[in-house]
Amino acid sequence: MNYTKKWTSLFLASAVTLSAVSIPQQEVQAAEGEKPTNVIMLVMDGSSNNAVTLSRWYKGEDLAMDEILSGAVRTYSAESAITDSAPAATALATGHKSNDKYIGVLPSVVNSPGLTQIAQEDAFRPVANVLEGAKQQGKATGLIATSEIQHATPAGFSAHATNRSQYDDIAEQQVYQNIDVVLGGGLDSLIPGELSDETSAFKLGSVKNARKDGENLLNVLQQKNYHFVQTRDELLNTNASKIWGSFAPSDLAYDFDRTTTRPSEPTLAEMTNKAINTLKKDEDGFFLFVEGSKVDWAAHASDTIGMISDILSFDDAVKEAVDFAKEDGNTLVIAVTDHGNSGITMGNANTTSTYSSIPVSSYIDPLKKASMTIEGALSQLKEDRSNLVEVATLYGLDALTEDELATLQSAENLGNAMVKMLANRANIGFTTGGHTGDDVFLYSFGPTKVTGLVENTDLAHAMAQFMGFDLNTLTNDLYVPATKALTEKGFITKIDLADKENPVFVAQKADITVKIPVNKNTMSYEQASTNTAKTHIFDTINVYNGTEFYVSKKLLQAIN
Amino acid sequence: MNYTKKWTSLFLASAVTLSAVSIPQQEVQAAEGEKPTNVIMLVMDGSSNNAVTLSRWYKGEDLAMDEILSGAVRTYSAESAITDSAPAATALATGHKSNDKYIGVLPSVVNSPGLTQIAQEDAFRPVANVLEGAKQQGKATGLIATSEIQHATPAGFSAHATNRSQYDDIAEQQVYQNIDVVLGGGLDSLIPGELSDETSAFKLGSVKNARKDGENLLNVLQQKNYHFVQTRDELLNTNASKIWGSFAPSDLAYDFDRTTTRPSEPTLAEMTNKAINTLKKDEDGFFLFVEGSKVDWAAHASDTIGMISDILSFDDAVKEAVDFAKEDGNTLVIAVTDHGNSGITMGNANTTSTYSSIPVSSYIDPLKKASMTIEGALSQLKEDRSNLVEVATLYGLDALTEDELATLQSAENLGNAMVKMLANRANIGFTTGGHTGDDVFLYSFGPTKVTGLVENTDLAHAMAQFMGFDLNTLTNDLYVPATKALTEKGFITKIDLADKENPVFVAQKADITVKIPVNKNTMSYEQASTNTAKTHIFDTINVYNGTEFYVSKKLLQAIN
Repeated sequence: MNYTKKWTSLFLASAVTLSAVSIPQQEVQAAEGEKPTNVIMLVMDGSSNNAVTLSRWYKGEDLAMDEILSGAVRTYSAESAITDSAPAATALATGHKSNDKYIGVLPSVVNSPGLTQIAQEDAFRPVANVLEGAKQQGKATGLIATSEIQHATPAGFSAHATNRSQYDDIAEQQVYQNIDVVLGGGLDSLIPGELSDETSAFKLGSVKNARKDGENLLNVLQQKNYHFVQTRDELLNTNASKIWGSFAPSDLAYDFDRTTTRPSEPTLAEMTNKAINTLKKDEDGFFLFVEGSKVDWAAHASDTIGMISDILSFDDAVKEAVDFAKEDGNTLVIAVTDHGNSGITMGNANTTSTYSSIPVSSYIDPLKKASMTIEGALSQLKEDRSNLVEVATLYGLDALTEDELATLQSAENLGNAMVKMLANRANIGFTTGGHTGDDVFLYSFGPTKVTGLVENTDLAHAMAQFMGFDLNTLTNDLYVPATKALTEKGFITKIDLADKENPVFVAQKADITVKIPVNKNTMSYEQASTNTAKTHIFDTINVYNGTEFYVSKKLLQAIN
Repeated sequence: MNYTKKWTSLFLASAVTLSAVSIPQQEVQAAEGEKPTNVIMLVMDGSSNNAVTLSRWYKGEDLAMDEILSGAVRTYSAESAITDSAPAATALATGHKSNDKYIGVLPSVVNSPGLTQIAQEDAFRPVANVLEGAKQQGKATGLIATSEIQHATPAGFSAHATNRSQYDDIAEQQVYQNIDVVLGGGLDSLIPGELSDETSAFKLGSVKNARKDGENLLNVLQQKNYHFVQTRDELLNTNASKIWGSFAPSDLAYDFDRTTTRPSEPTLAEMTNKAINTLKKDEDGFFLFVEGSKVDWAAHASDTIGMISDILSFDDAVKEAVDFAKEDGNTLVIAVTDHGNSGITMGNANTTSTYSSIPVSSYIDPLKKASMTIEGALSQLKEDRSNLVEVATLYGLDALTEDELATLQSAENLGNAMVKMLANRANIGFTTGGHTGDDVFLYSFGPTKVTGLVENTDLAHAMAQFMGFDLNTLTNDLYVPATKALTEKGFITKIDLADKENPVFVAQKADITVKIPVNKNTMSYEQASTNTAKTHIFDTINVYNGTEFYVSKKLLQAIN
């Protein structure tokens, strides 16, 4: 297994570098006459099967997904029948079921029937993901989401953290992963708190997610030669081979709301198309991850309109992927949701005894009246609620009866009252405000499309196999516990937590001091006797899981 | 297209027959060296995808269905987003979406988007089903259900009626269809009311479905050389090639209840196995329909245990089918539900904010405590409810709190209170007491297995194609409007409704009188001048849809 990459182990100059040493590059190229493999993995977060059915009726024509339905996926996590997005993303990206909130690390609790128990020493260990594997194959990589890009699902495909809330860590890892195209929200997590107010182009209130470690990742992106874009126009017009698009402080607008509330944001399909057209130039092929993130949020809120909005926009992105795959012939497309959410059904208590003669229009027509999601509609509400009727109409609640108006006027949670009212009008049912334990539809296309009933973890292995690597081997190459490895090399090691936002792994032997910073793809090497001070740069990142640092074999090989 | 059959158009003696004429039989045999095709179609009625997921967890191992998941099915009817079983069965069996309550006849109302409108003259027209097509190909046929065999879904595969409630018509058609193996409940509808009390082996209360037309179909079965069986032992021990098993006045017991309440009934898997082993002797191959009927009933009742009970017993039947298909190599197996029901989810209001760390056991353990379904448990309740606690325990409701006990004691609908209590303990949610508009999982296996997202109607056409016929051609051969056809032959026709339970189509020309009885496979032909009185027997049935009689081309050809 050869995990080289065109920008593997380059030693680049930085502020602390006194000398730069270059390690020969090895290009992994497709065998002559053989097309490289591409993988496009698209996740619509928290989209129960029934929400897709409803979206198809709403659209009034077949979805792009309909053409490639190929099976179903079991979604449970290592500890629960119903997964959350973090372990789901970990499963889809690394091939390992994990625990609630864990991003790209092994579980500490395994109680779902049929799974192998976890050895205590393996708990929380970072495990390599398919994007990292693609990089090692020399492929270009891309990461897209409509949420902040640090959100659980894109994080699972690009980072490693014991808690999905560690946005600072996740953002830093993503930046140092050197992913070629990164598009989505989440600007806040790139900028230190003290800078964010003046830097944010959006000024949408407080910058709740601003970085605490003082690092300005925008500067790093600049150093790494990204073209940093913040609007749809900038995105569509760039010809850069490395693009970082950060279109909102946190999440992007729902598709139905965008033209009204955030016209400068690109659609998911536009981001997907741009990414494909950028990445496909790599002669080694590419891996692209795409998430329609906010279906899940709409489902949590019982917002039928939000679900439809972002399932349809997701489907447009699937169409981009499938169109490319059809043309290319050597691209595997997988589209799937990570889990059910909300228990949505066409049919509710209204229809218990009448369902068999209720036409499609009775479900769809009330929904068609909405022009915005609940998030979008409420964003138009005046503080004194004086435009309540107009806002209700934006959400499709026209011709309010006196009772309905009174209900909305007195609602403690107006959004909740509105979504319930519309669901009632449209005969839509829900079982919960949380996720559900569904087996979900699998959509796939391409030479090794996945069929039948599979585990979510199987999808990771299928992608890895198609790209030509093994995820477990990759983990052993990319995430070696640093303490033992450097102790064996005769170093005395410690984890320096003096700056708690920036842990550093420090190893010393004679006059050699090695410093391995958290979340970065670097290692500093100083030797007093030879007056050497180098910063080595790798195509892998260093991960600290709260107990141990994990580093790549390549990093270890660079330490004498 | 040659719709001959080994027992085609035999003229058999009957009470009114003066002379018997034999038409040469034509055997349709498989080409030499070519194995005949078999089709086994299994329907689990009203089983939402999530109920299958839950059943798998309950069982603790993979289901037979899991191995053959191959796609998904759209289930809507011609008039509604959510279908009932009658139009669903019509779609699955005939390839035509239809209306609520319609069995094997075209719709009169078409409003679902994307469908072709129905010409007024085509409304209510009988359309041929795959079982009828298999018969015409010379194949043996079988029909199995755990409900009364006249229930909507088995009816859709064997009969034609404008209302699913026409059990008398459906039963009579089924008997005259000459299906080789018929197994299920529904004895009541075979026996006239005045006889049923003494004939029924079961004495389970009033015989609500006894026939109103005075016909004793048990006698007809005897004439037709069926081995009529009423118990599991009788079924398993017979070697007859024609078997009619009627194991209950109406429906069979749920699988979980059977050993306690109806130990003489066979399991669905036993019926399926017996049918396969009987039908496979036909050198032309066979078509077998199998329904796990009562998942739907349990779902309507929000009875999680009943759903699991009969999904697992259905899955055992699927295993029988797949095992045979694997061995045979030329058998197409399709398993599917006809529609969603109840909106069941793992996860409910209890789990809205806690789902991500709730283990599988929290859902399954409470359910495992139940030893009977709600139907079974309530069947053990004494009239004075003095054994309420024991009955609750049978349904898994052990260790009742004082509040819970009070709730059950005061419940107007005890069953409803019990199912809700257990669902609450097991974190199971429901959205409705009716069906739901789901796309449902498709399971199929065999040389032309069906994959991807398909319409329910596509399954009928896939089965027909595999067996070598076209359903629309078949309809034109089997269901010709009689009035026009015989008028064109110079007859004066009328529909004689003097006996409203037994309409007769009468056609006269000179001294010839043709009488075509409803629901039967016969036609009487009298000619005074030649002293002829014959009863022709066909392999097709005569259908009256309330407006017109429909007869086969063969019947018409037998009339000079």
